[in-house]
Amino acid sequence: MLKSIAIMTSGGDSPGMNAAARAVVRTALYEGVKVFGIYDGYKGMLEDRIVELNSQSVSDIIQRGGTFLGTARCPEFKQEETRKEALKILQRHGIEGLVIIGGDGSLTGGSLLSDLGMPIVGLPGTIDNDVWGSDYTIGADTALNTILDAINKLRDTASAHRRIIVLEVMGRKCGWLAMMAGIAGGAEYVLVPEVKYDLNKICDELKTSYDNGRRYSIVVVAEGVGSAVDIGKEIGEKTGIDTRVTVLGHVQRGGSPTAEDRVKASMLGEKAALALLNGQSNIVFGINEGKVVAIDLHDSVNNNKTLDPELVRLARVLSK
Amino acid sequence: MLKSIAIMTSGGDSPGMNAAARAVVRTALYEGVKVFGIYDGYKGMLEDRIVELNSQSVSDIIQRGGTFLGTARCPEFKQEETRKEALKILQRHGIEGLVIIGGDGSLTGGSLLSDLGMPIVGLPGTIDNDVWGSDYTIGADTALNTILDAINKLRDTASAHRRIIVLEVMGRKCGWLAMMAGIAGGAEYVLVPEVKYDLNKICDELKTSYDNGRRYSIVVVAEGVGSAVDIGKEIGEKTGIDTRVTVLGHVQRGGSPTAEDRVKASMLGEKAALALLNGQSNIVFGINEGKVVAIDLHDSVNNNKTLDPELVRLARVLSK
Amino acid sequence: MLKSIAIMTSGGDSPGMNAAARAVVRTALYEGVKVFGIYDGYKGMLEDRIVELNSQSVSDIIQRGGTFLGTARCPEFKQEETRKEALKILQRHGIEGLVIIGGDGSLTGGSLLSDLGMPIVGLPGTIDNDVWGSDYTIGADTALNTILDAINKLRDTASAHRRIIVLEVMGRKCGWLAMMAGIAGGAEYVLVPEVKYDLNKICDELKTSYDNGRRYSIVVVAEGVGSAVDIGKEIGEKTGIDTRVTVLGHVQRGGSPTAEDRVKASMLGEKAALALLNGQSNIVFGINEGKVVAIDLHDSVNNNKTLDPELVRLARVLSK
Amino acid sequence: MLKSIAIMTSGGDSPGMNAAARAVVRTALYEGVKVFGIYDGYKGMLEDRIVELNSQSVSDIIQRGGTFLGTARCPEFKQEETRKEALKILQRHGIEGLVIIGGDGSLTGGSLLSDLGMPIVGLPGTIDNDVWGSDYTIGADTALNTILDAINKLRDTASAHRRIIVLEVMGRKCGWLAMMAGIAGGAEYVLVPEVKYDLNKICDELKTSYDNGRRYSIVVVAEGVGSAVDIGKEIGEKTGIDTRVTVLGHVQRGGSPTAEDRVKASMLGEKAALALLNGQSNIVFGINEGKVVAIDLHDSVNNNKTLDPELVRLARVLSK
Repeated sequence: MLKSIAIMTSGGDSPGMNAAARAVVRTALYEGVKVFGIYDGYKGMLEDRIVELNSQSVSDIIQRGGTFLGTARCPEFKQEETRKEALKILQRHGIEGLVIIGGDGSLTGGSLLSDLGMPIVGLPGTIDNDVWGSDYTIGADTALNTILDAINKLRDTASAHRRIIVLEVMGRKCGWLAMMAGIAGGAEYVLVPEVKYDLNKICDELKTSYDNGRRYSIVVVAEGVGSAVDIGKEIGEKTGIDTRVTVLGHVQRGGSPTAEDRVKASMLGEKAALALLNGQSNIVFGINEGKVVAIDLHDSVNNNKTLDPELVRLARVLSK
Repeated sequence: MLKSIAIMTSGGDSPGMNAAARAVVRTALYEGVKVFGIYDGYKGMLEDRIVELNSQSVSDIIQRGGTFLGTARCPEFKQEETRKEALKILQRHGIEGLVIIGGDGSLTGGSLLSDLGMPIVGLPGTIDNDVWGSDYTIGADTALNTILDAINKLRDTASAHRRIIVLEVMGRKCGWLAMMAGIAGGAEYVLVPEVKYDLNKICDELKTSYDNGRRYSIVVVAEGVGSAVDIGKEIGEKTGIDTRVTVLGHVQRGGSPTAEDRVKASMLGEKAALALLNGQSNIVFGINEGKVVAIDLHDSVNNNKTLDPELVRLARVLSK
Repeated sequence: MLKSIAIMTSGGDSPGMNAAARAVVRTALYEGVKVFGIYDGYKGMLEDRIVELNSQSVSDIIQRGGTFLGTARCPEFKQEETRKEALKILQRHGIEGLVIIGGDGSLTGGSLLSDLGMPIVGLPGTIDNDVWGSDYTIGADTALNTILDAINKLRDTASAHRRIIVLEVMGRKCGWLAMMAGIAGGAEYVLVPEVKYDLNKICDELKTSYDNGRRYSIVVVAEGVGSAVDIGKEIGEKTGIDTRVTVLGHVQRGGSPTAEDRVKASMLGEKAALALLNGQSNIVFGINEGKVVAIDLHDSVNNNKTLDPELVRLARVLSK
Repeated sequence: MLKSIAIMTSGGDSPGMNAAARAVVRTALYEGVKVFGIYDGYKGMLEDRIVELNSQSVSDIIQRGGTFLGTARCPEFKQEETRKEALKILQRHGIEGLVIIGGDGSLTGGSLLSDLGMPIVGLPGTIDNDVWGSDYTIGADTALNTILDAINKLRDTASAHRRIIVLEVMGRKCGWLAMMAGIAGGAEYVLVPEVKYDLNKICDELKTSYDNGRRYSIVVVAEGVGSAVDIGKEIGEKTGIDTRVTVLGHVQRGGSPTAEDRVKASMLGEKAALALLNGQSNIVFGINEGKVVAIDLHDSVNNNKTLDPELVRLARVLSK
């Protein structure tokens, strides 16, 4: 069993990262192993901002959004020289393995670091739910409920005014958040990067439904589809119906994590620590078919997740 | 394909029942099938409070807690004579199949009705997450987050006063809600009906940790274990630490459903309607290993779900 | 005492309008007076969408955002001919007085209608808290808490990334929402239309504080100051610190009203109904120095409210 | 001007205490004055747990419930000998004045300490809103909204089952929380210590309204009236209607403070610090008729606040 490991968060933060980090720390301590926290991701690693943690270090954080370890961008980590430098810093602390919590980009960095010989276990921390091999990523459920809360509020005012509301949510390549929010929020249309749409047809249908007495419509747009401001403008012009646009932005990244994000992040954190301590490496822990699974780190970062077509169909049937 | 079906909610209400009913109605209509709503469960069925529904009937309800169809207890449904009466009423409306959303008791009623020849498809609607064969029941995620919100608030005040807080949550036979809330809320101890505990040992440990500087502890108790008021009193006396008790009660049953409860309830509602229309019967739709599955109705009501021992272990490791 | 009155919501909707309308209806009924609801504001008035209400009409709405009566724009109401037409419609129903809930524009319409002889009592319904003569408008407290919830979430992610967050909130002429949200949310800077600011100086100070270790800053911008997107871009360029922008938009108008908005809207609704029934007219009820007060309708729409300089000072002292 | 002051929270914690303490600290620092924090109230004072604070000490706390300073009971402070001891400890730190945030009991302690010559300024921190001379106490608005959130949830499930829900809320001598929650939550009955009630009459009316088709009723009970469990049992027996009881307990004390509680606590904190620095003493700052006012400390603790009869009347009119 390893004698000393480290934990780091990297890339965009997501709610539940603290719960995952807490589980890694407490599991290591429970097993009698030393555990370090690396502050502000790869940047902090290079600047040697590395501190030993105890059980108290992670108390009172499971309910907090963000990450107590901080995170930062670090473009210079793409250079091998830099990574070798980082490796030396880790070794100087006696760190024999590293858990990285982050999205695709962060896990790719981890994969490169593992090529130099540092054992790495990854955890999928991103609100986009776009990590290949896992049905779940840490933070996605919280972000989804934050969006839903916004839709609940938008519905009130849209209904009062007989308006169309266009809501832009996060998701550059992946429409999961938009599609789930659309189904849960009772949206009429959901525009995602994975599915083609015909805005003229949508506008015709919207016009018909308003002529038939509909009081409001909500259109959810994943940011990868294009600017909601532009799409809203076009819908307003083509339908002649009063149309308003909301861009939620970084509000989606914050907030106290939901129960699901706390429990699943805790489960994944525990498994990551145990696997690393027992000599496993180059894997990402995710949840697949309801169970915690280990995914090959290279596979995970080199494949793209697709959107479940069942969700697309369901959204269509239920909005009628 | 059937030509006319009905939808009913029964037993204790749970958040997401409206989303499930909406999905049943809209799916039936999408397939060109007539759909009736039965008000106030088996009681309303016997009183012939049965109304045809259209798409508009279920608009603007996906975000609402409770059930727009109402629910009620109906002990007389245990008599076969009464059920035969009910069957005639359904047949008079031309109803050829029935979707029932409810917990174990309600599904048992459905099972008996199906014995008389009425095709029945069940959906597990209960916050307790105690339906055999399904990892998920409609409303459990919302109830869990409601409990978590209470724990967040209790932690503030417990910490300010260095108190022990004992929180009683629902779950007569099943500790799922308590265990998940305990893990997600960072509770020190979780008492559930499925696992033995030693209150003397717990009190000793609590005393030691307060002597070592701990500022607060949260103990979650499933109602099936016994009265939290009594347990709290005993803890207070044995430890000498100021201990307070909260009994959340029916607050846990209400509230706007979470995204998970809305989406999963919608998925299950669609599958239930499609299966019933296509001649299936005597099944309950649940979610197992991340997928929608059909469970035999008799199996579902005759077996008892057990608590995942992994959760019990995880709760223990992370609270250290 | 009048024998028959009507209630209408107009202009932008705000949370609490339902509570106010409910209070008007129930007070009138309590006094034995007939009460009508006019749907969709002045537009619905002209289209004679006017329905008699009973106690049941307003049950289960106090907790809802938006307005069950609907609201709409009606530019043609600016013409006297149109208003005379409206008057006839009201008189045909036997309506002897009208309570209007809305902002400055809606109350101005009411003032013009009163010039034709229809007794009018107004209630200030707008999230902007910009009605002269009243410290309070219906919906402002809910909107403020919605903004605060967004700031809580933004703080998590800003802190994780050491970012500056620029948040645009509503308020074209009035910085009340921005200033209160800034104080309550612990923002570093609040830009409002009423107070000059020096963006260069702000950027210098931000840079200094980040150099000294600050982990995040929040800058709240009232929409009347200019586009938060532009301001955020400038701050990012001048400071060299990663800066992100959120535009909350219509989310601010929705949501279940807070306790304050429900109670104060109920108080104001009762007073409005009683005053109208007893022959008063051409007044707006507001809250001043903690008490319900009647403000002259013409004064209210012809004066501009100013921002309390104490708030401006307080924001400055506490952000240090 | 004084050169060194201290800040302390005492008695039951309430949301917004952190905002008030932050304002005291930052105002003192802004004025160039040294400021100490006393941990865990009078108990910590006697144990000399007193630490100098800086601006950073109170950053990132305005949004937190509870009190970062902690609070505790200290019965021995009733003895003059003990208070003289405390005075010496304060003087040893060079503390020339003290701001105390707490309820009646805590302010009484402050009053006795001031009799020994230590300048004291109090702030009303209690969710009960029962401090004489002030319309407002720190935390009351947050507690009220927490109760309202529970009522929103209870309404869902009560309506689904046609139940009566009896909800016990805090308030031993003062029915303010119960009365406001009743009005805002649309409760049918509110039982408070200040107003007599006839349970037989209430039960008759409830029975009549259910016979006429009512789907649910909510009865709010202030704890000072008696046990909600007993009252609920009696209502259930007398009406024959299914009746359930919820006792919210300490959940009401926690939670992130509302905008109102943060802003008003900040205002009061600033005024308290400025007054103390400028030689004022023996006063409590509260809010009266919308303005910050200074109340004589002895008057405040020796008088009892009464419940506004207008609220009682309003509750009655609107529930019809």
